[in-house]
Amino acid sequence: MPEDFVVTPWEVKGAIDYDRLITQFGTERITPALLERIRRLAGELHPMLRRGVFYSHRDLNWILDEVEKGHPVALYTGRGPSSGIHIGHMLPWFFTKWLQEKLKATLYFQIKILFKDFEDLDQATKVGYDNILDIIAMGFDPKLTRILVDTEYIHHLYPIAVEAAKRITFSTTQAVFGFTNSNNIGEIFYTSIQAAPAFLPSVLAKKEVPVLIPCGIDQDPHFRVARDVAPRLGFPKPALIHNKLLMSLQGPNAKMSASAPESSIFTTDSEKAAHKKINNAFTGGRATVEEQRRLGANPTICPVFNFYEFIFDPDDKHLAEVDRTCRSGERLCGECKQELWGLVGPFLKKHHEAREKAKDRVEEFVVRD
Amino acid sequence: MPEDFVVTPWEVKGAIDYDRLITQFGTERITPALLERIRRLAGELHPMLRRGVFYSHRDLNWILDEVEKGHPVALYTGRGPSSGIHIGHMLPWFFTKWLQEKLKATLYFQIKILFKDFEDLDQATKVGYDNILDIIAMGFDPKLTRILVDTEYIHHLYPIAVEAAKRITFSTTQAVFGFTNSNNIGEIFYTSIQAAPAFLPSVLAKKEVPVLIPCGIDQDPHFRVARDVAPRLGFPKPALIHNKLLMSLQGPNAKMSASAPESSIFTTDSEKAAHKKINNAFTGGRATVEEQRRLGANPTICPVFNFYEFIFDPDDKHLAEVDRTCRSGERLCGECKQELWGLVGPFLKKHHEAREKAKDRVEEFVVRD
Repeated sequence: MPEDFVVTPWEVKGAIDYDRLITQFGTERITPALLERIRRLAGELHPMLRRGVFYSHRDLNWILDEVEKGHPVALYTGRGPSSGIHIGHMLPWFFTKWLQEKLKATLYFQIKILFKDFEDLDQATKVGYDNILDIIAMGFDPKLTRILVDTEYIHHLYPIAVEAAKRITFSTTQAVFGFTNSNNIGEIFYTSIQAAPAFLPSVLAKKEVPVLIPCGIDQDPHFRVARDVAPRLGFPKPALIHNKLLMSLQGPNAKMSASAPESSIFTTDSEKAAHKKINNAFTGGRATVEEQRRLGANPTICPVFNFYEFIFDPDDKHLAEVDRTCRSGERLCGECKQELWGLVGPFLKKHHEAREKAKDRVEEFVVRD
Repeated sequence: MPEDFVVTPWEVKGAIDYDRLITQFGTERITPALLERIRRLAGELHPMLRRGVFYSHRDLNWILDEVEKGHPVALYTGRGPSSGIHIGHMLPWFFTKWLQEKLKATLYFQIKILFKDFEDLDQATKVGYDNILDIIAMGFDPKLTRILVDTEYIHHLYPIAVEAAKRITFSTTQAVFGFTNSNNIGEIFYTSIQAAPAFLPSVLAKKEVPVLIPCGIDQDPHFRVARDVAPRLGFPKPALIHNKLLMSLQGPNAKMSASAPESSIFTTDSEKAAHKKINNAFTGGRATVEEQRRLGANPTICPVFNFYEFIFDPDDKHLAEVDRTCRSGERLCGECKQELWGLVGPFLKKHHEAREKAKDRVEEFVVRD
């Protein structure tokens, strides 16, 4: 029996039943047939597809149709300024990078300075630009990547946003985002700024450009609004591909969040601090070594296993072996964490270096005109 | 007993009781003492002040204090794209021009492309730029006038607008503008874009710049929202000076509107068409010449007299003579219209010429960077 859970763009709580979300949100499952189609077109399947991390979609078949016809498609994703970028934020970025390479698609990456409540716009902008370093450090192709800081690109976004806004009522935002009369008019309006980059490629190209949005399943409602208004604006509906959310290091019912430093690995964590977080992580292990050897552990509730599965271990055979030895009790949590650190540590070191280099590359990626 | 009337930013209906509006909106009357202060500072009183066309205000004394101290103040007004600019739209512009000259104040003139429901942004922009010709033709000082097309100046307006927006709830817009759940989120947000130029002079100067907004009394609620948020944003509240609305040529209970061509003189009317409109205007006259000679006519309900009084006859002695001879029956409506045309005709001809010349001067006035 599924535990109670809540998944909305503004709240994720409890143990998520991802199957039920497909029904609840009205999205479609990525079927084996669809995976086969992607494999044929891309030449391979990204581990996040093989493993069902990206598991749900809207209109993905249409995107593949367009790709088959040789039509250019675009990618769109976004990020609010966050005081720390963690590995959960980056999960869809790894996959987006793969999509960019396979589809040769231009990626529009919106920095949503205005999305969050901030005390000061300058501070939010500073944080946004710090987040951009992490995006650049991911290794996106500078020729195919346009980072849009919404405040600085507003002259392009706003004309599209107002066309969308006039077709979105307050009632709709109440239904989709749970807004009430006491929400401020900036929050209420924001969904139209968030929708704008989904139509921007068509505006810039002066013809219909299909757009695919990789995002966490919790963000689907935002883009449902964009999809609803698209035909009335003369744009194609953006397609979506949804990922499951990375588990908090504090366990399957905890929330990975910038306000809970122990919940994840942040890109600015020192190697020492990150190592310690993994050592302190919740696991699916037993109370005692003796018990674990005898009964085995449970990888399905274990963030350490989740990190292997969702991001850090692309080797299916090795992953199966971790799973097997975890369940059998051959593998203990301490050594499993040690082994995970052997993957996370070098990643973090490399990211730190790339992040430093990114400081000189911001102008290669940020578009303003 | 006053007739029923409605004055809101989105509706003006019935015979307006301007005294009651002061109570209803909570503004202040322009007192003889305040007029005396203005006369002392400006060296004269504009006819619209002498005659109570501008009759109400908020914080005008503070603006005069600042002027006395030699501090720079700014003026702000705006205009939605209108398919036709009529003499009613222009009423506050005559006065604003006088204020600009007397105060040596920079005027920020916002073209509110986004304010109105439009089918197409390009079309609205085209109409907005056509309206700009009328603004330039008024003779504003190009060195002291910055016309802001909101879509094209949005990179400056938006950062201010979002700071305002986060402090304005949907409840407030319900109370002030009568919005309901079925209003679109663009309309709901717009008041914050309208507020932005009231704070722009302070942002640009990096210090507090007092702003005075001359506008129709019906527009007061818009700026009440701007005044409410100002202190929370660290800006001074914009001051306001309110005019009574020019009467429709169709009578005191009709509405002067771009959708009713007979209701006003439009800047693009041919002289012939304009002359005909004045000839066809409603008046305060009697049913027959005989009756009028005997009983006299009523200038208080007469748009022809209203045009003299509010705009076209700056000569107080002559105006008093028109009033006296109207009431006594010495003056008949036909000759009175003829005489008004003697003032309106040359004005229109001159405006047409200035409007043509304005086509080459747009870049002198519109600021984009």
